[in-house]
Amino acid sequence: MPTPQIQQQLAFLYEIDKLKYIFRKTKLINNADRFENDAEHSWHLCVMAMVLQEHAHEPIELLRVIKMLLLHDIVEIDAGDTFFFDPARPPQQSEAEEAAAERIFGLLPAAQKAEFRGLWMEFEAGTSAEAKYAKAIDRIEPVFQNLSNGGGTWKQYQVPLSVILKKLSVIAQGAPLLWEFTQNSIKTALANGQISVGSEPNKV
Amino acid sequence: MPTPQIQQQLAFLYEIDKLKYIFRKTKLINNADRFENDAEHSWHLCVMAMVLQEHAHEPIELLRVIKMLLLHDIVEIDAGDTFFFDPARPPQQSEAEEAAAERIFGLLPAAQKAEFRGLWMEFEAGTSAEAKYAKAIDRIEPVFQNLSNGGGTWKQYQVPLSVILKKLSVIAQGAPLLWEFTQNSIKTALANGQISVGSEPNKV
Repeated sequence: MPTPQIQQQLAFLYEIDKLKYIFRKTKLINNADRFENDAEHSWHLCVMAMVLQEHAHEPIELLRVIKMLLLHDIVEIDAGDTFFFDPARPPQQSEAEEAAAERIFGLLPAAQKAEFRGLWMEFEAGTSAEAKYAKAIDRIEPVFQNLSNGGGTWKQYQVPLSVILKKLSVIAQGAPLLWEFTQNSIKTALANGQISVGSEPNKV
Repeated sequence: MPTPQIQQQLAFLYEIDKLKYIFRKTKLINNADRFENDAEHSWHLCVMAMVLQEHAHEPIELLRVIKMLLLHDIVEIDAGDTFFFDPARPPQQSEAEEAAAERIFGLLPAAQKAEFRGLWMEFEAGTSAEAKYAKAIDRIEPVFQNLSNGGGTWKQYQVPLSVILKKLSVIAQGAPLLWEFTQNSIKTALANGQISVGSEPNKV
């Protein structure tokens, strides 16, 4: 006998299928042809969080990190993806994401809505140990992609190295060793001519 | 300074990007045009496991379930996807999956290789409480898809209702209430003409 509880849970699980249609700005590793969608991105981040756990800056509860990463992009079903390096992120984006969280997590029974919304807000705030590590992981995956695609979005949108490094430095808060590794990888790829990025503003 | 440990972990994390190119036989919900890939499938299962946890037959450790679901299809990067209802599953499939697990998990540092391979084998064996629940979840997602696509693979491959119900009855071991719900949903959709499936062998 289907209970109202199951009906609500299924309504949510059907709805989030739409995350498979939300495309990011970055492309798959070694593939300049195919954009990554938010669902497969979320899967990759969860495996990364599991594999790289020992590099987290503080002790973290892995299950909470993975829950955050599974849920972190669901608001984009309504609010759409924005480009991380875009200096002109629409001011109404946060509002749109809040409304999306209310609508989509609101499909669930009340206790689960509260838990999931809480996890999403914790990720967005980025202050708990779990949120810092989760955000570091979220920043590292597109680095892999851009490094393998000649610079990827950094090249396409002409983002200068100084801006890339500044924006990515949030990785240090969650995983300092991975931040060191990330910086070195970008600088080496640039020095070897494997990627290109934007010119520095003061050099233009 | 990149350690050999990180290098091995990254080699694995790069390699598994290929899961985004492995397509399943089922199509997305309400979409007869687009096949689902293994990476987005794995993400959806993890969220399902989290949302439906209260319906697990036995107490389960959710983190172990999610780890299994994140990893369960990675062997298909080498071994390919097989059709669940195919009575002629190639006898060499298990061997190919074993070899794939050895190669792909073998990219990781030894302790992680052992853990991940162990989780994959536990899922395949399907005997622990976590594996039973994880397998139930893995069976339920394509039911959602087929119910929304006029019968989907059941119709396309002419799978009779008796075979569908027999093969899916494994759901009962991990989540009896969800199995009851699944059966009712399939029978109702069939009675209402919303889906069609294969004819029963003895009626042909």
